[in-house]
Amino acid sequence: MGLKITVERSTSPKQKPDTSNLVFGKHFTDHMFIMDYDAGQGWHDPRIIPYQPISLDPAAKVFHYGQTVFEGMKAYKTPGGPVLLFRPFKNLQRLNRSNTRLSIPSIDEDLAMEALKQLIKIDEDWIPTDEGTSLYIRPFVISTQATLGVSPSEQYSFMIILSPVGSYYAEGINPVSIFVESEYVRAVAGGVGNAKTGGNYAAGLKAQEEASGKGYSQVLWLDGVHRKYIEEVGSMNVFFKIDGKVVTPALNGSILDGVTRDSVIQVLKHWNIEVEERKLSIDELVEAYRKGTLEEAFGTGTAAVISPIGELNWQGDKMTLNEGRTGPLSEKVYEFMTGLQKGVVEDPFGWVVKL
Amino acid sequence: MGLKITVERSTSPKQKPDTSNLVFGKHFTDHMFIMDYDAGQGWHDPRIIPYQPISLDPAAKVFHYGQTVFEGMKAYKTPGGPVLLFRPFKNLQRLNRSNTRLSIPSIDEDLAMEALKQLIKIDEDWIPTDEGTSLYIRPFVISTQATLGVSPSEQYSFMIILSPVGSYYAEGINPVSIFVESEYVRAVAGGVGNAKTGGNYAAGLKAQEEASGKGYSQVLWLDGVHRKYIEEVGSMNVFFKIDGKVVTPALNGSILDGVTRDSVIQVLKHWNIEVEERKLSIDELVEAYRKGTLEEAFGTGTAAVISPIGELNWQGDKMTLNEGRTGPLSEKVYEFMTGLQKGVVEDPFGWVVKL
Ligand SMILES: Cc1ncc(COP(=O)(O)O)c(C=O)c1O
Ligand SMILES: Cc1ncc(COP(=O)(O)O)c(C=O)c1O
Repeated sequence: MGLKITVERSTSPKQKPDTSNLVFGKHFTDHMFIMDYDAGQGWHDPRIIPYQPISLDPAAKVFHYGQTVFEGMKAYKTPGGPVLLFRPFKNLQRLNRSNTRLSIPSIDEDLAMEALKQLIKIDEDWIPTDEGTSLYIRPFVISTQATLGVSPSEQYSFMIILSPVGSYYAEGINPVSIFVESEYVRAVAGGVGNAKTGGNYAAGLKAQEEASGKGYSQVLWLDGVHRKYIEEVGSMNVFFKIDGKVVTPALNGSILDGVTRDSVIQVLKHWNIEVEERKLSIDELVEAYRKGTLEEAFGTGTAAVISPIGELNWQGDKMTLNEGRTGPLSEKVYEFMTGLQKGVVEDPFGWVVKL
Repeated sequence: MGLKITVERSTSPKQKPDTSNLVFGKHFTDHMFIMDYDAGQGWHDPRIIPYQPISLDPAAKVFHYGQTVFEGMKAYKTPGGPVLLFRPFKNLQRLNRSNTRLSIPSIDEDLAMEALKQLIKIDEDWIPTDEGTSLYIRPFVISTQATLGVSPSEQYSFMIILSPVGSYYAEGINPVSIFVESEYVRAVAGGVGNAKTGGNYAAGLKAQEEASGKGYSQVLWLDGVHRKYIEEVGSMNVFFKIDGKVVTPALNGSILDGVTRDSVIQVLKHWNIEVEERKLSIDELVEAYRKGTLEEAFGTGTAAVISPIGELNWQGDKMTLNEGRTGPLSEKVYEFMTGLQKGVVEDPFGWVVKL
């Protein structure tokens, strides 16, 4: 690993927010991690510094050509308990897969892990312990070279910021209504859909805005080639319980390889529930709904963990799932996953990392 | 228009670069334009200020979710002559089309035009007059709200920066070699391919990097659905002369509606050359090449104006066009377009705007 992380402590700690009513992603802790990259020199100067604005030339490539990647993970704590991370290496590995896809130099995963641990330790008091709360961790890389022209940047910054958060959806663990998108496309095979990069999210804003105008909290994306295979939801992978089996779209290059998705698949198998990772068309879903075999649906993602789906709107036809209530499987998976993450359920997988 | 642009002049003008040897996008003038947006308030405080770094919270949405748009245009000047802009309103209209697609609030085009004019006037001395040089103009919008979570930003900055430039390609007006991309995809129908937003360029970096490793300066993108219809090149639209006629891919939602493309189509028609805007498959191109009817090819874009294509590599097969030299039509269009833009050729279209 080689590089040593320096620490500059904040001399003016901020007021902490009321943790009983946290909005997602609005508050940030007292410190941040930053490390710079210059071609020729490599990554250098890893440091923890007081949370502060960053100053960039207006020509910095990040403002023009979208060469960025990010990650999202969480630290959990119960009152008096240790700080727990959930499969953090999976996120750091994915960060590097995203980096590779975006022509960004790799980051030493051990160094990033060390940075993560030190930063969280320093701001440990910021981790909320109320039900449904956690410390959201946002590692990200931006391209900083101040030169116009489309080419990979020769300079980058890798940062980690921390945010105490409540539920991602205002609805909390209540079922969400989802609009199945037939006009807009988020990503396509051969593109960057399986990388966690800004452009994928920007590409989804318009559809999300229109769906939200119709009263839906998220869109369900279909594939960009046939416009019929289920991909994923805004920032969640998606699972359907059809006739006793659980089906989720296979990793196909255009959806994100979710850490929660992978975990849920393993948990379900651990419970001897059959899981199929395969192509799943909207027609098959509609057919199952008509036959009464579409029993449950839920999204999986770090922010919301498990988000039951109460309604799907496909071209104006509303499909209500489990009478719009959280289904028993969604509930069971949610309880188990959040129990694991908070350290109140025994971890048979070795996923939980104590800080 | 209403808003008044304030001006703060730089007190420490920079050293101007040697204009006989300008690299694209590396030097910036003494001033920049900036205007901010806040939900509720709208766009406000349009101002010209000394060129300076911008300071943003690390949580600013631009760093995470890629909600950005940009434009590219040029100002030209001959020694002693007036400053000329080429169809600037087309760029400002496209800026707003990109804004709409990216859920960014529209910008008053008259105000933007006024900002452009005032800014260029102030930095007029920076406009190079050497052959092949110009002042590249980069208007762009970034999302600045410091809140994590995927949703349109409630705050933005719109900026304009200016850069004296030479040729975009190191080759200058010499023919470029292009690699026809069969693995990666840049954009797909239903996506944001027809918006000038960062994510499209980030998505293309990897392919460009690999092509450049094989000795090609750009890639030619195929459509993301059938993987066979010609779309466009890196930052250029593309034209082929086949059997006496000129063919260019029709605007299909996934390619950029280039200002140079539109202009070249009109110029060709003005010269009574037949132009077809339609679907064009790589197979048709290969077939024409085999039959000897693929006479010329060239890219069109603000940065390079006209860029003759000397070689196309399709799955390892090299197609050499016009013996690798600039074809007569490419040459003629280049001379006419650059003549128009510099004001040395009479403008029958009313495209050139004197400052
Ligand atoms: C597009 C997308 N899909 C799926 C997910 C779920 O991934 P994970 O479970 O790793 O959070 C996310 C969120 O990270 C996402 O942004
Ligand atoms: C993707 C893409 N296509 C085409 C073009 C050419 O457009 P224009 O002629 O307006 O510069 C550009 C450059 O602006 C571009 O970025």
